[in-house]
Amino acid sequence: MDELEIDAVAEAQLDDPVLVEGLPGVGHVGKLAVDHLLEELEGDSTLVRRIYSREFPPQVTVEDGVSELTCAELHAVSVPEGRDLLLLTGDHQAQTNDGHYLLTTAFLDIAEEFGASEVFALGGVPTGELIDEYAVVGAVSDESMCETFEDAGVEFREDEPAGGIVGVSGLLLGLGERRGFEAACLMGETSGYLVDPKSARAVLEVLEDLLGFELDYETLDERADEMEDVIGKIQEMEQQQQQQQMPTDDDLRYIG
Amino acid sequence: MDELEIDAVAEAQLDDPVLVEGLPGVGHVGKLAVDHLLEELEGDSTLVRRIYSREFPPQVTVEDGVSELTCAELHAVSVPEGRDLLLLTGDHQAQTNDGHYLLTTAFLDIAEEFGASEVFALGGVPTGELIDEYAVVGAVSDESMCETFEDAGVEFREDEPAGGIVGVSGLLLGLGERRGFEAACLMGETSGYLVDPKSARAVLEVLEDLLGFELDYETLDERADEMEDVIGKIQEMEQQQQQQQMPTDDDLRYIG
Amino acid sequence: MDELEIDAVAEAQLDDPVLVEGLPGVGHVGKLAVDHLLEELEGDSTLVRRIYSREFPPQVTVEDGVSELTCAELHAVSVPEGRDLLLLTGDHQAQTNDGHYLLTTAFLDIAEEFGASEVFALGGVPTGELIDEYAVVGAVSDESMCETFEDAGVEFREDEPAGGIVGVSGLLLGLGERRGFEAACLMGETSGYLVDPKSARAVLEVLEDLLGFELDYETLDERADEMEDVIGKIQEMEQQQQQQQMPTDDDLRYIG
Amino acid sequence: MDELEIDAVAEAQLDDPVLVEGLPGVGHVGKLAVDHLLEELEGDSTLVRRIYSREFPPQVTVEDGVSELTCAELHAVSVPEGRDLLLLTGDHQAQTNDGHYLLTTAFLDIAEEFGASEVFALGGVPTGELIDEYAVVGAVSDESMCETFEDAGVEFREDEPAGGIVGVSGLLLGLGERRGFEAACLMGETSGYLVDPKSARAVLEVLEDLLGFELDYETLDERADEMEDVIGKIQEMEQQQQQQQMPTDDDLRYIG
Repeated sequence: MDELEIDAVAEAQLDDPVLVEGLPGVGHVGKLAVDHLLEELEGDSTLVRRIYSREFPPQVTVEDGVSELTCAELHAVSVPEGRDLLLLTGDHQAQTNDGHYLLTTAFLDIAEEFGASEVFALGGVPTGELIDEYAVVGAVSDESMCETFEDAGVEFREDEPAGGIVGVSGLLLGLGERRGFEAACLMGETSGYLVDPKSARAVLEVLEDLLGFELDYETLDERADEMEDVIGKIQEMEQQQQQQQMPTDDDLRYIG
Repeated sequence: MDELEIDAVAEAQLDDPVLVEGLPGVGHVGKLAVDHLLEELEGDSTLVRRIYSREFPPQVTVEDGVSELTCAELHAVSVPEGRDLLLLTGDHQAQTNDGHYLLTTAFLDIAEEFGASEVFALGGVPTGELIDEYAVVGAVSDESMCETFEDAGVEFREDEPAGGIVGVSGLLLGLGERRGFEAACLMGETSGYLVDPKSARAVLEVLEDLLGFELDYETLDERADEMEDVIGKIQEMEQQQQQQQMPTDDDLRYIG
Repeated sequence: MDELEIDAVAEAQLDDPVLVEGLPGVGHVGKLAVDHLLEELEGDSTLVRRIYSREFPPQVTVEDGVSELTCAELHAVSVPEGRDLLLLTGDHQAQTNDGHYLLTTAFLDIAEEFGASEVFALGGVPTGELIDEYAVVGAVSDESMCETFEDAGVEFREDEPAGGIVGVSGLLLGLGERRGFEAACLMGETSGYLVDPKSARAVLEVLEDLLGFELDYETLDERADEMEDVIGKIQEMEQQQQQQQMPTDDDLRYIG
Repeated sequence: MDELEIDAVAEAQLDDPVLVEGLPGVGHVGKLAVDHLLEELEGDSTLVRRIYSREFPPQVTVEDGVSELTCAELHAVSVPEGRDLLLLTGDHQAQTNDGHYLLTTAFLDIAEEFGASEVFALGGVPTGELIDEYAVVGAVSDESMCETFEDAGVEFREDEPAGGIVGVSGLLLGLGERRGFEAACLMGETSGYLVDPKSARAVLEVLEDLLGFELDYETLDERADEMEDVIGKIQEMEQQQQQQQMPTDDDLRYIG
């Protein structure tokens, strides 16, 4: 196998699409959001590309006994009421620094091929504590883009995210900018400890505003309810522990 | 040395052989199984290829003072009563993600060269507890293969193995499928804590059914008995500890 | 993106400049020093090169919501009263051994292009304890250089730094020497636990002497005062802990 | 810098020399032995090659303030009363698996260039406990070599070293054998916890017998005495601890 192999599964005509990326990351916010988009817009979407790479973990997933080699997938979505989309999702990030550069370059090549000049990377920004009101924090490749996003409710903050943005999401901005894309990263606040469907919903609501479509949130809200139950149980356990001993930060750290 | 060097030790004519892989992994199930096959079918087998690679650890094994450079070996077996075999074994997996892709590609190249169109990767699936009845869990590269394997007693489960299949075994399915092989992974249940000859026997019994040969299990059963003794001693130690203090999961984790 | 991409942002004529490197390292001494130089000599400096590389972490920094791809920057400074400078700074070191070799080679190529034949790598040498008097320890690529540096107050010690010099600073000496540069590393003593503006000032005072310019230290002293406050609070916390239990070396280790 | 750069510092005519390798490893036995050889045979030796590589750590050593780029060195030694030697030493092993293969290949290339057809890799084999009588354990690339080494007091054992031989020493046997060298590894028994000059002496005494020269051991014995003092202090501390509390398995686990 080559370092990179791109299977052209199908072709699709898109009108000025936006590449929307949702690979796994903090709170799985980006992946949850793009997976929900795919589910809700299924009728209008076509799987167009599979990207295999030696930079992905050497692994197959198995569902009902049938294996599938790790890859990233791109779906073309012709949205009737809004902007066309090119949705990027997958189960894994690259495993090396070099791999992030390689894969991001491949994703931008395909975006270009489908006529995209805008890129939205979706993700989460960790706050370290459970959240009531989910803000969406933004980062853009060019200052001129801020206003549009602020109008849609995105917050730009002086020093956030403090550690910058790492991985494919970061490089879609960094490499995208160098190649002339308008790139933005939309990050839902999330504790960082748990898979967070509510944060994904906050990000998607911003997207609805920006791209002109409407989503049903029933299945995502169900997943959020399931997580609420998990959180409830954790808090119960914590309270029991607190009665026995002082809790530590480590109690939450390895969950999720 | 090149990234990959293949020594053609001998040639052999095989009739529609199956590549059977047994490199080290969970419970050493795959390696035990293929080593036992080699032992039992010794009279009919020929060492045909040695595969050296910079992706293996930079290491020699030493036996009776004589060194041998780390490699993988392929034996051609002309089985009188059943399907011909191409047995892949060795002492090490690749040491990098990239290496898994490189070596699996080399193994499939050689399989092709010997006319194989089917691949069986043998391994273990960890259950986290000691086992009485050893089921064999399967994964296949194409759904159409399930029935044959189910008839031989292989179980296909909705969500297992949960983390997918990693390493050469996983890639034999993933890359094999992309190259037109029919690939399956047969995983004996095993605690995951100990070298497990009983699990290897369970996998081999499925293979007997699938490939039409019969094996003697005396030497493998002897190794199983030895492991029983080890397990017995561990359980004894545990009981003694239990009388002194609550045992933890960690007691078993680092043995074997 | 290529392994290395160098953007020629502007050109500048320099007269026998010295390449001065200040990438992140022990106590951030080198980076603080070069950042202060850039701030104080801003009127005379031009950003001439940006160096992007797959060897840097796959990351953007975000300031006021605008992203910037990780890179190293070179500023040309025409110092009226002293030697011209080529200042190298950035937010990251390379992430692999190989990357250090690659980037250092690129930095030396650019230094050569601007006519530099001398290289000063700035950094810190960890002492393991808080410091009152900040010595500057030196290492040079050729023994003949020692005298000039000793005259400027640099100390050369028999066995320091004990572990050698690692990363870009080390390779600027090692590779620089092989290419005919006169290369020196100036290391301010620093605890190793905290960002250390005082150590950076000690290094800069040596540079003033060596290169014939004068700096104002107001902003650097302010940062030093801020750090003093931090240290004060840590010592207070330590004393409180000491009254409760024996303190350990680990108390300081992960701060800064 | 290239992946590998070999500086031809000088040339030398050797008569059927043996390549003797002593890079850092278990107990620093190999390095101590070759460094002692170099010291004792200084009058007859010439530094012939320096090997620089991106596979070494990106680092300079500093002695009296003067830096030297990490490299390996080869000295040619014309031994009047015995076999000529090509001595390989250095401060570092390669940092990656790939690097071990690359550097060993380079070392064998140079050995070939100087007419060597035999290779001795020197090292230590860890026993896990302090040693009174230092045996020298051997491994050879070909069984026919055993007798000569046994006559010189080398022991060949059924299962030792249990984990094989890793790094350059291992590959000198493994790759050496593939290229037609007669290669042996001579390993002095050593606790594995401490630098061990006595083990180095045991290995050198075997070499004297095999290669026909005589060495003075005064400086090596001095270093051994210094280590005895260190061991004495450790044992004292251990006895004091034993009187205070029951020792646990963990006490030993992380030492050395």
